[in-house]
Amino acid sequence: MLSASSLYAAIDLGSNSFHMLVVREVAGNIQTIARIKRKVRLAAGLDSNSHLSDEAMERGWQCLRLFSEQLQDIPAEQIRVVATATLRLAENAETFLQTAQQILGCPVNVISGEDEARLIYQGVAHTTGGSDKRLVVDIGGGSTELVTGSGSQTTSLFSLPMGCVTWLERYFGDRHLGKENFEQAEQAAHAMIRPIAAQLREQGWQVCVGASGTVQALQEIMMAQGMDERITLGKLQQLKQRAIQCGKLEELEIEGLTLERALVFPSGLSILIAIFTELNINSMTLAGGALREGLVYGMLHLPIDRDIRSRTLQNIQRRFTIDADQAERVRHLAESFARQVNQSWKLDERCRDLLDSACLMHEIGLSVDFKQAPHHAAYLIRHLDLPGFTPSQKKLLATLLQNQGNSIDLAVLSQQNAVPPRTAERLCRLLRLAIIFASRRRDDTLPAVRLQADDDDLSLTLPAGWLEAHPLRAELLEQECRWQSYVHWSLTVS
Amino acid sequence: MLSASSLYAAIDLGSNSFHMLVVREVAGNIQTIARIKRKVRLAAGLDSNSHLSDEAMERGWQCLRLFSEQLQDIPAEQIRVVATATLRLAENAETFLQTAQQILGCPVNVISGEDEARLIYQGVAHTTGGSDKRLVVDIGGGSTELVTGSGSQTTSLFSLPMGCVTWLERYFGDRHLGKENFEQAEQAAHAMIRPIAAQLREQGWQVCVGASGTVQALQEIMMAQGMDERITLGKLQQLKQRAIQCGKLEELEIEGLTLERALVFPSGLSILIAIFTELNINSMTLAGGALREGLVYGMLHLPIDRDIRSRTLQNIQRRFTIDADQAERVRHLAESFARQVNQSWKLDERCRDLLDSACLMHEIGLSVDFKQAPHHAAYLIRHLDLPGFTPSQKKLLATLLQNQGNSIDLAVLSQQNAVPPRTAERLCRLLRLAIIFASRRRDDTLPAVRLQADDDDLSLTLPAGWLEAHPLRAELLEQECRWQSYVHWSLTVS
Repeated sequence: MLSASSLYAAIDLGSNSFHMLVVREVAGNIQTIARIKRKVRLAAGLDSNSHLSDEAMERGWQCLRLFSEQLQDIPAEQIRVVATATLRLAENAETFLQTAQQILGCPVNVISGEDEARLIYQGVAHTTGGSDKRLVVDIGGGSTELVTGSGSQTTSLFSLPMGCVTWLERYFGDRHLGKENFEQAEQAAHAMIRPIAAQLREQGWQVCVGASGTVQALQEIMMAQGMDERITLGKLQQLKQRAIQCGKLEELEIEGLTLERALVFPSGLSILIAIFTELNINSMTLAGGALREGLVYGMLHLPIDRDIRSRTLQNIQRRFTIDADQAERVRHLAESFARQVNQSWKLDERCRDLLDSACLMHEIGLSVDFKQAPHHAAYLIRHLDLPGFTPSQKKLLATLLQNQGNSIDLAVLSQQNAVPPRTAERLCRLLRLAIIFASRRRDDTLPAVRLQADDDDLSLTLPAGWLEAHPLRAELLEQECRWQSYVHWSLTVS
Repeated sequence: MLSASSLYAAIDLGSNSFHMLVVREVAGNIQTIARIKRKVRLAAGLDSNSHLSDEAMERGWQCLRLFSEQLQDIPAEQIRVVATATLRLAENAETFLQTAQQILGCPVNVISGEDEARLIYQGVAHTTGGSDKRLVVDIGGGSTELVTGSGSQTTSLFSLPMGCVTWLERYFGDRHLGKENFEQAEQAAHAMIRPIAAQLREQGWQVCVGASGTVQALQEIMMAQGMDERITLGKLQQLKQRAIQCGKLEELEIEGLTLERALVFPSGLSILIAIFTELNINSMTLAGGALREGLVYGMLHLPIDRDIRSRTLQNIQRRFTIDADQAERVRHLAESFARQVNQSWKLDERCRDLLDSACLMHEIGLSVDFKQAPHHAAYLIRHLDLPGFTPSQKKLLATLLQNQGNSIDLAVLSQQNAVPPRTAERLCRLLRLAIIFASRRRDDTLPAVRLQADDDDLSLTLPAGWLEAHPLRAELLEQECRWQSYVHWSLTVS
């Protein structure tokens, strides 16, 4: 059956939760159609002799019975089930696994820490943009993976037996959020990381990416509090202070921290602080995927692009039938404008990349409707999964596309944290001008425009007689000067 | 060039405005990429000797210079330019046309009233659903077309030399909105329609569709005031009374009436009232397109489907890569449920058709993201152009899709006018249950469910042991009973 044969499932039996991800492959794109998570808390059922309790096993099996109902409809070769830390450790894991495999009707693979680390790295590499050389950190319930790699290749792999559930039991067992609890938790984490720190640092990295619930919680907290999305040691320390002020685990209250994530947040935080200090990490961002995504992409045999973003952009252009020639025309013009004003505006490469991306997707709103197309574009960009772009970059792209024509909403341009508001305004102005000049959808009608910037005063110089010969664009330009003047941007045309 | 060769333009030089519509054909779908309108008011430049003034001509040429800039990039055989009433009448039309054709670089076709009526009918037939046998009414600036037809064929065609601009000049020349102005305007319109009324009535119609600015203005007013979308004589008379209360054209203020449409609204209203009374029309809805759409669809040689809606639904499924098998599975189940409760709920065919449509598109939100997919579905349906569905039907579909799972928003279900809130709630319940039972995406796993309705109490009967054997759906059903109970809907499962 067509629809079933395009389905893939990845299940991960973690120490804290069991997850099932079901995706559908449509034209080279992965569409999530089901995501089920149950907090089984398997690790909590492990006693000091590494014996898994009957109750914990029953909780696990119960959950697998749910999963199995959906699994039966997916071809066996399109299912991967892996188990991690707790089932690596449990001396009676076999008992659990036998029944588990009976319930699921397919093999459960207890993977080694190294395999886990490798899969996590694959999941990150398939979904996360930015520089090629990266350090990936994943704090699970029972283990923490640290991986360095370049492109699709890992260069070093480590899996440490510490996680936010085990650290919770060990160092916050009294449910107290004291300075001492954190100190002990951090010290223990330091001791774990120290032996491997030199090897990791030797490989080195240009970017550091985090892929766990702790990092996701941090992301949500920073978004809710209007901070930019880079996680720094400073911010982690502030949050620790805040947690200590709350005093007790059940009284923990931080804006943006959901109830679901609160219980294991302090323990995860202490591990992350130790990692930051031990490895001297400047900043970290959230990955677009991890273990389950690594399993799914592995089954689909998709190559890891050098450049995740360009794959994403091409994919979006195809799915939303964007006129790619026109998008490229606008990109080309915007780039030329950016070059011309570079001496004054000094837009860095990161900004110019984002401007490129905005150009390549700017007509996406037409796939919904011509009326309010910029608004539709912003909606889609805000909500689409765009591998390679971070949440705050997506927000910037959305605000630029929303302001691609007609009246300008300054407030929206400053409601993003990817670049300073003034930079967003400048990118916006370049995008708008490029769209106007490319409006005829032909390469040979792009005029030789000169754009100059004196601080925020822009002046456009056109070939003699051009405006008279092109009344439609002359009218658009005249209107554009007016829109820009309404928000006190000076634009002169001559 | 690829992008230029898929472009089509339709220009209509009307008595009130000149319009240009540029569309792009993508995979059998028409995407609007530019729409330019200028109020040239050509008819106002026509004196009593049918001589078109130099000023009016210049206004027209000025506008065509704008259009021509974009036209140059479109293959000549993919452009249609037509002129209507005023240029049919003007004794010096040739002077205007010669320069116009020079500016545009392509022929301008002054079409007869009958040709105009035929094109309007084609535009309506391609974009408007509902019953096959229809009366189409289009009140232009200088002429009014009345057409009957069945499917893609017209059965009678009339073009009358009255329009909202000419009637404005003649009967509201003093800018007074008196009872007498309306009476005179209506009497004159009656005199125009009377001679053809018998012929139109002889052909007969099941639905009546309006396709002009006047009808669009009425639609906007009714939407703004929360009325349902059917235009009736009663509503027209109310609006006339409201206009008379305002006293003067420049003081006309009706909630939902835009400044742009206000000037020719009273004159258009008087013509429409005369048409309603003379032809004894029960109700009228807004067409999805008219003259320009007729021109565009004519160039694209698309067949007129018997069933516009199914073309639209197929198109949407393809564009948004919806799993068509799964959609059909849900539709099939929902239909079976609707049949089972029919004795108590008595959902009419129109309602069941809309439920079908909701089922066929319910997964559209997944094309944006799994997270909040129902919300994305509602957004898309609200904003997409869906030929064959009226605005209020779209709104109903959007509210059903928004409530396809999780918590139920009763307020949203009553924020539509297509069906009574209680009916919307019932459709919503059937859709939700169908989605739950079809969740495994296979035909052979649909259980033999019995659904019974006792007023608004629903009871589901499942084969013995089914719930135990299907824990995932058992859990979904248990949760569903809870969601429904929160809004005081009784659902029992046994």
